[in-house]
Order: sequence, then C-alpha cells, then structure tokens
Amino acid sequence: MAYPLKFTYDNCLDSAVGSEGIARADLDAGQCAEAVRAFRGRVDSGAIGFPNLPEEKATASAIAEFANDLRPELDHVCVVGIGGSALGACALDVAMRGPHPVQLSNANGKPNGKSRAARPQLVVLDNVDPGFVAAALERMNPKRTAVVVIAKSGSTAESLATFLIVREWLVAALGKRNRERIIAVTDPKKGDLLAVAKAEKYPLFFVPPNVGGRFSVLCPVGLVPAALIGLDIAKLLRGARDANAVCWSEKLAQNPALTAAAVHHALDTRRRKKIEIVYAYSSYLWGAAFWYRQLWAESLGKRVNRKGEVVETGQTPVAALGVTDQHSQSQLYMEGPRDKMITFWDVEKQRVELRIPKEFSKLDSFGYLGGKSLGQLFHAELVATEAAFTEAGRPNCRWTLPRVDEHSIGALFQTLEFQTAFAGELYGVDAFDQPGVELSKKLTYGLLGRKGYEEYAKKLKAGAE
Amino acid sequence: MAYPLKFTYDNCLDSAVGSEGIARADLDAGQCAEAVRAFRGRVDSGAIGFPNLPEEKATASAIAEFANDLRPELDHVCVVGIGGSALGACALDVAMRGPHPVQLSNANGKPNGKSRAARPQLVVLDNVDPGFVAAALERMNPKRTAVVVIAKSGSTAESLATFLIVREWLVAALGKRNRERIIAVTDPKKGDLLAVAKAEKYPLFFVPPNVGGRFSVLCPVGLVPAALIGLDIAKLLRGARDANAVCWSEKLAQNPALTAAAVHHALDTRRRKKIEIVYAYSSYLWGAAFWYRQLWAESLGKRVNRKGEVVETGQTPVAALGVTDQHSQSQLYMEGPRDKMITFWDVEKQRVELRIPKEFSKLDSFGYLGGKSLGQLFHAELVATEAAFTEAGRPNCRWTLPRVDEHSIGALFQTLEFQTAFAGELYGVDAFDQPGVELSKKLTYGLLGRKGYEEYAKKLKAGAE
Repeated sequence: MAYPLKFTYDNCLDSAVGSEGIARADLDAGQCAEAVRAFRGRVDSGAIGFPNLPEEKATASAIAEFANDLRPELDHVCVVGIGGSALGACALDVAMRGPHPVQLSNANGKPNGKSRAARPQLVVLDNVDPGFVAAALERMNPKRTAVVVIAKSGSTAESLATFLIVREWLVAALGKRNRERIIAVTDPKKGDLLAVAKAEKYPLFFVPPNVGGRFSVLCPVGLVPAALIGLDIAKLLRGARDANAVCWSEKLAQNPALTAAAVHHALDTRRRKKIEIVYAYSSYLWGAAFWYRQLWAESLGKRVNRKGEVVETGQTPVAALGVTDQHSQSQLYMEGPRDKMITFWDVEKQRVELRIPKEFSKLDSFGYLGGKSLGQLFHAELVATEAAFTEAGRPNCRWTLPRVDEHSIGALFQTLEFQTAFAGELYGVDAFDQPGVELSKKLTYGLLGRKGYEEYAKKLKAGAE
Repeated sequence: MAYPLKFTYDNCLDSAVGSEGIARADLDAGQCAEAVRAFRGRVDSGAIGFPNLPEEKATASAIAEFANDLRPELDHVCVVGIGGSALGACALDVAMRGPHPVQLSNANGKPNGKSRAARPQLVVLDNVDPGFVAAALERMNPKRTAVVVIAKSGSTAESLATFLIVREWLVAALGKRNRERIIAVTDPKKGDLLAVAKAEKYPLFFVPPNVGGRFSVLCPVGLVPAALIGLDIAKLLRGARDANAVCWSEKLAQNPALTAAAVHHALDTRRRKKIEIVYAYSSYLWGAAFWYRQLWAESLGKRVNRKGEVVETGQTPVAALGVTDQHSQSQLYMEGPRDKMITFWDVEKQRVELRIPKEFSKLDSFGYLGGKSLGQLFHAELVATEAAFTEAGRPNCRWTLPRVDEHSIGALFQTLEFQTAFAGELYGVDAFDQPGVELSKKLTYGLLGRKGYEEYAKKLKAGAE
C-alpha cells in the first residue's frame, strides 16, 4: 500500500501569516539531509532501533498467535505500565475503538456494521492513585483478565508496586494458575522483572535494548496489548513500513517527517514558537495526542546539547481536541501571546456518518443545520478554525489521515518518531535519553527508605526545615 | 464547615528558586486590594454573577428534587453541551466517581465500602465527531436515558446539531414521551433552544444571564447533571460558600484566591512564566484540570486590555497528571525552557488505601516497596517531584485538598473562579468575554450556507485559491 499521510505547512509561511511565519528558505535542505545521515548512522550502528521494528514480522506473528489463543478467555486486558509503557496501548485502543466510556461492546451492536466490539476492554493502570487502582480491581473479573506488566528497565517503582497488588488479586482468585494470566514485557537480559518472570514462568516478550519507552509502541510494548484487544497488528506494521519508505529520504520534498521536523525547528528557533498545540480533529486521535505529547516533550526537552552546552530547549506540546477545545482553548490560541504553532490532525473519511434531522427549521439556529451530515459540520469547523488562525497570524500546519485505521495509525506513529529523531539532530540534542527525571526518582527512593538512597532522604529533610 | 483548601507558594520565591523566583514584595498588596474592590464593583452592579451562585439554595433544592424523582429510571445521563456547558459536569463526575472506564457500578460492589455506584453513567457529547456520537447512541438505552441539552446562548451549532440527532433517537424509542426525557438548560429570556423547550414543554432550568459558560458549574449547567448522577449538590454549594467567606478579603494573607492570582501574575509578567502546568496528583482531579484549563485560558487569553491597548496576554495552561506524567512530561519541565510555573494539586487523604504485598523481597527493585501503602508511594512522588523542580530553579506552588469530596470540590471551583477574576483585574483584561472565537464561528456558518454569512464563505474560497 502507499504511504497514507499528507503534511502541509503553507500556513506556516510568511506569505500566509506575515512576520510570524517562516520562509521556505528557512528550511535548510543541506542541514536536513545531514540530519538524516546523522540519524542513519545511529541506526546503522545499532544504537537506535525503532526504525527497524516494522520488519520484525516473526515477533508480530508470535504475538498475534499468542493473543488469539488467549483472547476468548478475556473480558479485560489490564496493562500495568507507565509513560512509554502505557501511552501507546491507550492510543491504539482509542484510535480503533473510540474513547471511553462509549466504546462499543458486543452486547450493543455495531453502528453501520463497521465499529468493532470493545471486548476485551483495556484498562491501563498507569497511575498509583490507590482509589483508581482499587476501582479498577473491583471492576474487573480476575478470572477473565489478562495482566500485561511492562517495564523496560524491570525496576520502575510505580509499575512494580501496582503489579504486586494486581498479582495478589489474581492469586486470590486463581491460586497458582495466576501465572497463566500474567504476561511480562521487559528487557531480554537484565532487570528484576525479568528475574520474576523467569522464576514464575510467565509468558515473556522482550523490549529490544535499543528501543526506548517512548519509541516502543511498535514492539511488544504496544503490540501485545493491541493484539490482546483484537487489533490487526500486521496492518499497523505495514503502515509503519510504508512510512519507512518515505522517511529515510534525504530530500525535504519527499520526506514528510523531515519537513515537519524542519518546520517545527524553524518556528521554534527563528520565531520563538515555544509551544506546539496538537489540535486533533477526531475523538479517536485523542489518545494518540497524549502519546505524541510524551514523544515530543521527553525527546527534545533537554538541558544540554550533544556538545554538553547548556541549551534548555524543547517545545511544550499541548494536546487539544477539535472541535471541543474551540470552546475552551481557541480564544487563547487566537488572541494570546504569539508563542504558539498549531498542528492540526485531520481525518478525511469518518468511520460512520450521521445525518442532522430537519427539525425546528424555522428557527435561525436550527435551519441551516438540518439535512447536513455531522461530519460536514465537523470538517467545516476545522477549515474555519485553520483560516481564522491564519488570518490572525498564527502559524499552523496539518497532518491529514485518509481515515483512522491500523494502517494509517502505524504510519502516523512511525512518521512522528522519525520527525522527533530528525528534530533531535536539528536541535543538536540527544532525543533518546531522559536525564532530568533521575533526581525525583532518587528522592522518592530516599523517602521510601530504599537502601543506598539515605542521602536523598536527608536532603529532603534538610529542605523541609 | 471551615474553608478546606490551602495554597502555598514558598517554592515560587527567589529564596527557593533563585533568580527564576519572585520576592514576596512583588505581590503588591495595594494593587491586590484594588483588584478585589474592582471585582466587587462588577458583582455589586450585577454584571458578574458567579460569586452569588452558592446562595441559590432554592434552585439547588428544586434541581435535587427533580433529579431524585428521575434518577431511578436512568442508566445514563447524556449531556449535550460543549466547553463551559460540558467541562464542569465531567469534572464533577470524575472527582466523585473516578475516571472512566473504571468507575464503580452497583453490579461490582464497593471497595472498602466507600466508593459510589456509577449508575447512572454520565456520557458527555461535547464533540461532533460522528463516530463518537454514533457509538454513544449505540451504548445507551434510549428508554433509560435522560438527555440534558445545555447552551446558554441557545444557538451553539455543535450542541444543537447533536441535540437534533439525539432527539431523533429518543423519538424513535419513546415517541411523544421523548419530551419527558429531555431537560433544557439555557437563558431564561432568549434564544432558539428556549423557544424549542417551551414549545415542546421540556423541563427547563436557567443559566443566569450574568454567569458565563466557564463560570457556570455551580448553576444548573453543572448542578443538573451532577444531581442526576447522584452527587450531593448542597454540599458542593456549601464548599463554595466557605470559599466566598475567604475570597472576598482584601488582605492577601487571608485570601488564597487573591494570593494565587498575584503569584501567577507576578511569575508571568516579571519572570516570563508563560505556561502554567497544572500537575494534578489525583486521578480524580483529572477532569477538574481540564475544567480549569478552559477557565484560565479563555478568561485571560486576550488581545486587548480594558483600555483597548493591544496586550496579547494569557498564560497557556497545561494539564498534567501525577504521577503518570512524571514519565512523560517532567523531563521537559525539569530541563527545558524556563517558561513555566508548576501548580500542584495535592490530596491529603485518599478515598481508599491499598497495601503493597511483600513479595520477591530479595530483589532490590521490589524489596523497599513491600509493606508500604500505595498512597505512601503516591505522595512521596509528589514531594520528590516538588523538591526536584525547586532544586532545578523551577517555581512551583501547591493547592492542597483535605480529600476529594463535594465540599472540597465546591470550594476548589469557587476559589479558582475568584482567582481568575482577580487575575483579570491584575492583567487589566476582561476575564468574562471571548471575542477571539467569533471569526471561526462565522466562517463555519459561511461554509454551511447559513443565511447572512455568505461573505465568509467567499472569504474562505478566496483563501483556497
């Protein structure tokens, strides 16, 4: 199949938005080609692995087979993970089955015969809020639940704590057979989760060591939950392979990921657009917006560049939902500080369509709506909002998906990961580490009395005095 | 009862975060007292109504009585509204019953006997994505659903379009008796929704003309859905009244809303903190974070001040969820551009508690967790994150709630509305209008062929050429 996405950025140009925009010449073709080559080097050396994930067809087949066997026994798939171990599965669930709480279930039929059944339901325990975890355990039947515990390092405090609680809940219901309902996804060679999984003989899937959490949606981290809830993971990977076919090009005009990276970088560094609004015009893409928020923020939000110079860089991504947030955030985006660029996510074809009935037509506010489709209103609002931002001198670009399906979503994930990797090269930062979260982890260990972290406990006490 | 909230901002001071912080003297007591007096004038003149809503006990009693009669017939409460007509109900639902999809239902019992039953379930149709609306209609039983259509102006395109579709769905199941299941909330004197509601004899509740959408959660806009899903709206109002008792003080030290407004304003205007991260450390406050996001963005995101001078002001609010977003956004907040302030929302007492089992204790990553409570880990992470931001020179403040209940939430809503009103005075902008969204509305009308908007259709065509 062909690459399904389009990226357009005419409304980021000075010809459209005046002095707040960039010139096409600001996208430095030489620097961009160099970014591709530099990133290619990291992949060829084996340091970075995400571009090669779509080729792992054998892994995907094994996952699909495993999931197909287990799925009939399940009402719930419970993911225990956080950050990159949670957001991909959430995004896939929402994209293919819609936002909670209105996902369709077998019991209620399928509108227009096109929607999927929302069994098994996905529950992602990505927070250690005790009320939230307790409610989730009350809602699920331990005899009809698979637990997927995901931690690349094998030591993430939140995920292990939640896992211990969820495991106890399974053991209470299933006894020794709890082991048949726990799947572990972790590093192939090290970590305490690996040790437990081996000792307990859990089914195990591995995170390639050169694939970081926020780039892991197309490895078992995202694929195992996706397959368990019944998504077609082969199609996801096919979409990602179609992205690979364009994203390795060194030519801006042929590489949408590279173009998007260059546009973001130029708007940030030349026009001080320190905030990116991701305006997803689809309730089905709301999860993907949060997945992207991690990808962009954690990859580019860096204190130092690769030379060790202090740069304190990184756009702040903000997730917005079209049309909903037109009635919440657009006022600020239209009139507030000129520190933002807007990226629309547009879907050409809706999964189902609804006709607006012709009723109360004599009333002005009703008359023009009757007989239109709801999708027509939906898309008119995107076009109108885009035009209004442009007229107000607010640069905006657009990703267009033909529809929300596994193929497009696979392509979107892979493309945005390439965009992020290229942006890392343009900013000169390491897009694949996250040194800034170490301190709070160590302070937490200190507070909980973990051995070796006594000095951090002292530090906090000193601060409190 | 006493005012339940605490606001602390020691970590915004230069003594804690160095040159990125403010001095206590930057909070201008005189200017703040003047802000209270100016806002008091607007309320006394009748222009602004939200501060008086908690006194409307008769309205609340009428709503509660109406809701108590109807509730036993309901499995779903379907709100048709957008922006200020949707976010308050969502926030209340999530606060009192937890995030979807794990809200507790009668069928599954109550952990520790403390959680509420999630019947009727709330479904908020705040987007015109046709797949989303279609899925919602498939999920609900029209014979067991109440539809609350909310539009202050009575003409909001999205809400009326969705309403026509939802009404048709009700009519198909109930015939003429659809009228008994539609409740309208709109202006008492004007608008097409009012006309329809009167003609069809729907139960009607009114939005006071001097209460704008984003300040309307404690009038029928928020109270009707809240009462229908079984919340104690009298307690909500009591919390808000307790907020009124402190929020009218002209003295900074006695008025947390005024102090918070001054801290935000000083950090924005003196230290260029153009972004506010609302870091809600409770899954139950995630809806409230989105409610606040509208309040802050739409109220202060303004092109001109009250004198008509171009100011392009307003912090960009970003919702973050603790601890989840420590693994997604904190890297950027710790190391990225110094354009942010962080506001933690802390909850002292969790609704339920869970013990982390002592298992696999010989492994380093498990050993220190066993025997602790999950809430202990949860709160340690807040304390650690706060300390890490402070050490990195990132100003942060904190709202503390004793627990998440109706009383605290009522106080929180009212306090944050006062904070926003005072901030409007400090910035010198009108916090109660939203002129910036008119253009996209008119362009949408043009695209849909509404009479009188032909010029806007032409404008878009010209732009497309």
